[in-house]
Amino acid sequence: MRSNNIIDVHAPIAEAFAKGRPVVALESTIITHGMPWPRNNEMAGDVEALIRKEGAVPATIAVIDGRLKIGLSDQEREKLAQAKDPMKLSRADLAFAIAEGKSGGTTVAATMIAARMAGIAVFATGGIGGVHKGAETSFDISADLDELARTPVIVVSAGPKAILDTEKTLEVLETRGVPVIAYGTDTMPAFWSRNSPYPAPLRLDTAEAIARFQATRTALGIDGGMLIANPVPAEEEIAADVMAGHIATAQRDADEKGISGKNVTPFLLARILELTDGASLVTNIALVKNNARLAARIATALAAE
Amino acid sequence: MRSNNIIDVHAPIAEAFAKGRPVVALESTIITHGMPWPRNNEMAGDVEALIRKEGAVPATIAVIDGRLKIGLSDQEREKLAQAKDPMKLSRADLAFAIAEGKSGGTTVAATMIAARMAGIAVFATGGIGGVHKGAETSFDISADLDELARTPVIVVSAGPKAILDTEKTLEVLETRGVPVIAYGTDTMPAFWSRNSPYPAPLRLDTAEAIARFQATRTALGIDGGMLIANPVPAEEEIAADVMAGHIATAQRDADEKGISGKNVTPFLLARILELTDGASLVTNIALVKNNARLAARIATALAAE
Amino acid sequence: MRSNNIIDVHAPIAEAFAKGRPVVALESTIITHGMPWPRNNEMAGDVEALIRKEGAVPATIAVIDGRLKIGLSDQEREKLAQAKDPMKLSRADLAFAIAEGKSGGTTVAATMIAARMAGIAVFATGGIGGVHKGAETSFDISADLDELARTPVIVVSAGPKAILDTEKTLEVLETRGVPVIAYGTDTMPAFWSRNSPYPAPLRLDTAEAIARFQATRTALGIDGGMLIANPVPAEEEIAADVMAGHIATAQRDADEKGISGKNVTPFLLARILELTDGASLVTNIALVKNNARLAARIATALAAE
Ligand SMILES: [Mn+2]
Ligand SMILES: [Mn+2]
Ligand SMILES: [Mn+2]
Repeated sequence: MRSNNIIDVHAPIAEAFAKGRPVVALESTIITHGMPWPRNNEMAGDVEALIRKEGAVPATIAVIDGRLKIGLSDQEREKLAQAKDPMKLSRADLAFAIAEGKSGGTTVAATMIAARMAGIAVFATGGIGGVHKGAETSFDISADLDELARTPVIVVSAGPKAILDTEKTLEVLETRGVPVIAYGTDTMPAFWSRNSPYPAPLRLDTAEAIARFQATRTALGIDGGMLIANPVPAEEEIAADVMAGHIATAQRDADEKGISGKNVTPFLLARILELTDGASLVTNIALVKNNARLAARIATALAAE
Repeated sequence: MRSNNIIDVHAPIAEAFAKGRPVVALESTIITHGMPWPRNNEMAGDVEALIRKEGAVPATIAVIDGRLKIGLSDQEREKLAQAKDPMKLSRADLAFAIAEGKSGGTTVAATMIAARMAGIAVFATGGIGGVHKGAETSFDISADLDELARTPVIVVSAGPKAILDTEKTLEVLETRGVPVIAYGTDTMPAFWSRNSPYPAPLRLDTAEAIARFQATRTALGIDGGMLIANPVPAEEEIAADVMAGHIATAQRDADEKGISGKNVTPFLLARILELTDGASLVTNIALVKNNARLAARIATALAAE
Repeated sequence: MRSNNIIDVHAPIAEAFAKGRPVVALESTIITHGMPWPRNNEMAGDVEALIRKEGAVPATIAVIDGRLKIGLSDQEREKLAQAKDPMKLSRADLAFAIAEGKSGGTTVAATMIAARMAGIAVFATGGIGGVHKGAETSFDISADLDELARTPVIVVSAGPKAILDTEKTLEVLETRGVPVIAYGTDTMPAFWSRNSPYPAPLRLDTAEAIARFQATRTALGIDGGMLIANPVPAEEEIAADVMAGHIATAQRDADEKGISGKNVTPFLLARILELTDGASLVTNIALVKNNARLAARIATALAAE
């Protein structure tokens, strides 16, 4: 077996591990499937720079030509950002892409797996996957929730993607024993919006308190990750009532056009981009950066625990 | 990290471990959320005494001022029984309460986690959480079921709480691979009643057989807990057809008043208490004692395996 | 405890382990619940012979008189094939049968557990259990899916049994992070038929590629099994549109007769046997043999990794 010949740890990350410095993992489907070239590459570079500015080391996770990358060089990031038909990798197919020599972006689930494997405790993303609207008959539920239930990584998000069924997503996370902590607020954030109709299961107000909570879970031997729901900054949010209208319109359009299965999410996101005249993407980038900043602070606090 | 500074093992329990004597864990939401002071404290003290009388050592699990308690002194039990706004702790927030220095009662899920951590193999409770009525659209399913699927503790109950959807609860337990053993009967008990319309998945008639089953699972390396469903003594049951009427009335009242989410269970239990003129609580206490007795015998049999 | 006194490894399998030769596990509910004596015994013997012919060693898994059998002698197979009221054993009751000294056939879930315990990486069956039709209200989902999510065994099947809800079964497997690989085709096979309306999540074309995929998962420390969906040979299939009619008729008959719960699957299979004038059983045997052949090749490829 070529077991120890399939993972590449980028030099600055290996150095950070050696020196006990904080590291933050980043997913890469936002690069491969989230926005077009060259905006995807610029955004990813900006987010990495922001983590460095906070004193932590960014580790973008991806699969390139069958090798699991823990951190990318600028050249690798550019290559990934221009990849033709990259895979969108989750728990089920992460190893498939590696075994078959393919390239792909890693979802929340796959990024958590890679982060844990590399010893990275904190991971920043935009929003997690969850229970899709209509899941009571479609059974369409993201593998991200299962991964949160079993893999001990702190996932810093702006909540589940707002096109999902937030209420059912919270129910599944409760059933699976996953802590959901709103950062500095009593209300679940809703990705593009600071508020949703749902109270947050738990609330913490500092990166240090989040680090202490996770350290206590580790000390008790409690498995699994936790979800931080970090509201987008007020100046960059799109108000919840405005978004509700756009989401409903996009959903109706999808139904009318008979869009189904894996095509629903990309359709909805593209339609919402049109309906908001591009503002949804601006807010998306803002919330990713906001999450990266918080993740860097949590990683720093954890390194000091 | 303050890892080994967050758990307090009460002296009689540490002594029991040292001498290889049987220990039975007890949950504490029945103290913090199940009945009012001072009845909660009296009931908890009576149940502990009953376990001692059977030759085992009771270990009530709780979190007090941020410390995980494996067994309580009389003073600690009184303090918990009078706590202001205690948390109701499950897998997701057990470590939260500890990290934040709070107090709370432990649900079935959290008690299982603490019991396993402390090396206690048997745990007595009233009824477990499960699939709520209407879960096909609400997705409201207790974290107790997931915990049974992964944590190797024998949970002695009188079945799922009868206000739940028993049939769907049995389906989920089957899907998750959790053994459900009715004690001395072919029918699933229904908490306040000895019978339900559902056949029991498995049946065993002695504490020794239950201990042997669990020891065999351990020997085979099969993960997870098992649920013992122990019917309340005949002289203290409320017949299933009588309870069915009360449960339906309480459910209808909840629907009419628009009670939803986490408020449903406490509302139903309070309404059933009124509808039965207090008999539901008498039966509840009787079944908890009955379960404690069986748990002590199973723990004794396990110690002899 | 009698821990190391409950498993019997049949001599040829112990020898294969010692020599590093490929071993293929086989389930036994097909013997105890799948067809009548003596056809069940003949079929099982034929499948074992076929695996030997491919250069691997067959290990039929079962429980006989409370002992877990890893491989059966001819006498043991005959005994099991004629057992009176054998149990149908899944994760929840495998250890129960052993502790209580009973006999039973092992389902996909229980066979996976035993295979992993014995160190067997590949297992051939007919079709796996999954999400039953109507599960959105019945919550009836096979424990096989949960087992695939946690136990690292390659299960070679002809897809989920076609009387199940294939689409929802694929959704649950995706949620739980289980790879589903169609062998040599882009379409999910449907047990008796080579095709279903659903695209396969993943495709691989050689036993070597499957072995490499699983070896990569192991190298990465990714838990759980994978499902190979191997289409029945063209000359032995029953076309999907023909089967769709029979399945619908059988389902309607079950509904009319009020067949429910655990009785549905045996009723449907018996009715389909009638409706196809026995052809469904011929195809079933053909697909089991086809899966056994592929499983032997995968085991051989894995042994060479
Ligand atoms: Mn999906
Ligand atoms: Mn709930
Ligand atoms: Mn079932």
